[in-house]
Amino acid sequence: MSKLPNIITSIFTIMSKMAAEYNAINLSQGFPNFPVDERLTNIVANLAKKDVHQYLPMAGYPSLLSKIAVLVHNSYGRILQPETEILVTAGATQGIFATIQALVDTEDEVIILEPSYDCYEAPVLLSNAKPVRIALNDDYTTNWETIEKACSSKTKMIIINNPHNPTGKILTITDFEALEKLLRKFPNITLLSDEVYEYITFEEKHISAHTRSALLKRCIVVSSFGKTFHITGWKVGYLVAPEHLMKEIKKVHQFLVFSVNSLSQVAISDYLDIVSVQEISSMYQEKRDYFRQLLKNSRFKLMTCEGTYFQVASYSAISNENDLDFCKRLIMEHGVAAIPISTFYADAKDLHLIRFCFAKDNATLEEAAKRLCSI
Amino acid sequence: MSKLPNIITSIFTIMSKMAAEYNAINLSQGFPNFPVDERLTNIVANLAKKDVHQYLPMAGYPSLLSKIAVLVHNSYGRILQPETEILVTAGATQGIFATIQALVDTEDEVIILEPSYDCYEAPVLLSNAKPVRIALNDDYTTNWETIEKACSSKTKMIIINNPHNPTGKILTITDFEALEKLLRKFPNITLLSDEVYEYITFEEKHISAHTRSALLKRCIVVSSFGKTFHITGWKVGYLVAPEHLMKEIKKVHQFLVFSVNSLSQVAISDYLDIVSVQEISSMYQEKRDYFRQLLKNSRFKLMTCEGTYFQVASYSAISNENDLDFCKRLIMEHGVAAIPISTFYADAKDLHLIRFCFAKDNATLEEAAKRLCSI
Ligand SMILES: CSCCC(=O)C(=O)O
Ligand SMILES: CSCCC(=O)C(=O)O
Repeated sequence: MSKLPNIITSIFTIMSKMAAEYNAINLSQGFPNFPVDERLTNIVANLAKKDVHQYLPMAGYPSLLSKIAVLVHNSYGRILQPETEILVTAGATQGIFATIQALVDTEDEVIILEPSYDCYEAPVLLSNAKPVRIALNDDYTTNWETIEKACSSKTKMIIINNPHNPTGKILTITDFEALEKLLRKFPNITLLSDEVYEYITFEEKHISAHTRSALLKRCIVVSSFGKTFHITGWKVGYLVAPEHLMKEIKKVHQFLVFSVNSLSQVAISDYLDIVSVQEISSMYQEKRDYFRQLLKNSRFKLMTCEGTYFQVASYSAISNENDLDFCKRLIMEHGVAAIPISTFYADAKDLHLIRFCFAKDNATLEEAAKRLCSI
Repeated sequence: MSKLPNIITSIFTIMSKMAAEYNAINLSQGFPNFPVDERLTNIVANLAKKDVHQYLPMAGYPSLLSKIAVLVHNSYGRILQPETEILVTAGATQGIFATIQALVDTEDEVIILEPSYDCYEAPVLLSNAKPVRIALNDDYTTNWETIEKACSSKTKMIIINNPHNPTGKILTITDFEALEKLLRKFPNITLLSDEVYEYITFEEKHISAHTRSALLKRCIVVSSFGKTFHITGWKVGYLVAPEHLMKEIKKVHQFLVFSVNSLSQVAISDYLDIVSVQEISSMYQEKRDYFRQLLKNSRFKLMTCEGTYFQVASYSAISNENDLDFCKRLIMEHGVAAIPISTFYADAKDLHLIRFCFAKDNATLEEAAKRLCSI
C-alpha cells in the first residue's frame, strides 16, 4: 500500500525526458541554458583545490549565513540574525519539505493556491494533513475572501508563491493587506512564502514578505540560489524563519539531510561579495520581451508575465486537445517542449494553456519561436 | 507544540562546535582531515568550466547510475538495473529519511538497534510510527531472539547498520542467517541496511546485504560517497532498492529534494572510472592500528574495532563522570573532542564509553594521543 497513492512522476521529469527522446527544444522544465557567470565558475575551480570537502555546520557555512543576512538587508531592509533565523537548504524544495514536515501535523489543513507548483502537496500528505486547494481568479489574482472562508481552527499554514509559478503573477500591496487582515483573525496560521523567483520581476516591483513587518514573526520565506544565479543543478537554497519556528525546522533538517554541499556553499559565499542581484530582472525582462515579440505572429495567445522566467500561452486558436496531449504533440510534431498547465491543478482543470520557459539563449528562443509560429 | 519534542541538536553539531570554541583536536564528528585525492579535485576544477550546473534527472545522473551498478557488481556480484533500482541522494541521511517516510506509516513499528546512530528516529516519529529500540548484547553482537520477540504484525521495518556506528561491529554470516530466518516469519517487514562504512572493514570481511539473495526483494541498502571517498561535505550518497519499493521512495525523493548537486554527481561519475575502492580498508586499518598503538600506554581501554573509522574506548579507569561530562572536560582540560556513547541510547545509558574518529592524518593522531596519554 502506497502512502502517496495519487502522487505520480513530476511533470518536469516527464516532459524533460520526452524532450530529450525526441530531441526537441526544451522549454518545459525551468532552467537556464546559457553559461554560468565565469567569475563563479572560476571561484569553484580554485576552491576545488582547497579544504572545502568536509561537513559544514548543519545550518550552513557561517560566512554564507552572514552574507545572506546582508543580501536580505540590502534587498529588503530586513535585519536578520544569521545564527538563529537563516538555514541553508539543499534547494528550495528541501527547505519547503522540512518546513512543512516540522510545522504541519496530523489533521491540520494547509491552504495551497491553484494553479500550484507541484512540490507542496507531498509533504502535507506525509504529515497526515489535508491540502485545501483554492483556485486563483481567472486573471490569476488571489481571492482572499474565498481563502478566508476556507480558514478555520484547523488551518495551520497558507502557502503563497510570489512571483507565482506557473502564472508569473506577483502579489500587490492590496494582496498583502488582505492577507495580513486574514492572518490577524487566525493567529495560529503560519505563512510559507515561496519567493524563489524574487529577483525576476518586471514592470511591477516584487513585494517580499520580508518587507511586511506584520508577517515577520509568523512567516517562513524560501529562496533559491539556483534561480538567482542560474545554477539550478547545485541545489542550494535557503530559508528565513523567526527563531521559534526555525528551531523546529532545524530539528527536521538535521536528520533529513544534516548539511548542504560544502563546495557550493563556500563558492556562493565568495560570489556574493562580487555579484549584484540587481541586473537579473532586466536580463530576464529582455528575454521575456524578445520571446513575446518572436511569438507575436503565432497563433498562441500570450498571457501577462509579471515575474518568473515562464510565459503562459493559450493554444485555443490552434487545437481542442487537452493540455497534456497538446504538449506531447508539440514535442513530437513540432520539436518544442512545454509544460501543460492542467498539471498544476489537482483535478487537471484544462484551460488550453501551456507554459514556456524563456531562460534560454536567444538562438534557442529564435529557433523555438520559428517552430511555434509555423503551427 | 513541537512535533519532535524530544529531538535535540545532534551530538555531532554540539561536540564539533565545542571543539572549535576550545580549539581542541576534533575526534568527535566523523570526517577525515587529510586531503581529498588530487585526481578528484582536478576533475572538479575542470568540470567547473563545463555545462554541469543545471538540474540533473531526479533519480541521478544517468552515467553515475550506471557506474554505481558497476561498482555494486564488482564489489558484491549483484546485478542492478540503474534506471529502476538505484537512487542518488543528498547524502545517506537524505536517503534514509526518504526511505522511512515513503515506507513507514502511522502506527507502524520500526526496530532500531542500540546503541544507534542518531538519524533513524526523527523520520520514524514524523511518520507517526513507533521506534522500537532493542539493545545489542554487551559485546555488541546482535540478539536476534530479542529482536524476533519484539516483532509483530505491526513491525514495518528493521534497520541495521553494518559496519556499525559507533561500535565498529560487523555482522557475520550467522547474523544474516538468523535475520533471514526471522524475516521469513514476518513477510511484511522491510530491511533497511545502512552500509555507509561498507568499504572500511578490517580483519573480518564486510558482508553486504547485496550478497544475500534472500534479502534482495525486501531490502534497501544505503551507501555514502562521502565516507568512501573522504568527501563528507559533498553530501552525495545513494541507495539501492527493488523496483516496487524504489517507486515509493522516488515519490518522496522528488518532492523532498528533487535532484542532487550536479557538479558533484558528474565528478564522482568520472572519478569512478579511475579510482579503486579496494585500498580504502587497508588505509584505515593502518590508521586504526597506529591510533591504538599510540594509546597503548594510556588509561583508556580500547574496544574491538572491526570496521568504520571509529574507535570506542572506556574511561572507567580515569573517571566516574558520565559520558557527556567526561567528553566536555576532555575538550576543556585536555584539548581533545570525542563523542559520548550515551547519546546513542534513548535513555542515555552510561557505560563510561566514548568514541574517537581516527580518520585523521598521523600528526593529528599523534598529538591527540599525546594528550590522551597524559590523562
Ligand atoms: C525541480 S524541476 C522544476 C523546475 C521548476 O521550477 C519549474 O520548471 O517550474
Ligand atoms: C552528519 S555528522 C555525523 C558524522 C558521522 O557519521 C558520525 O560522526 O558518526
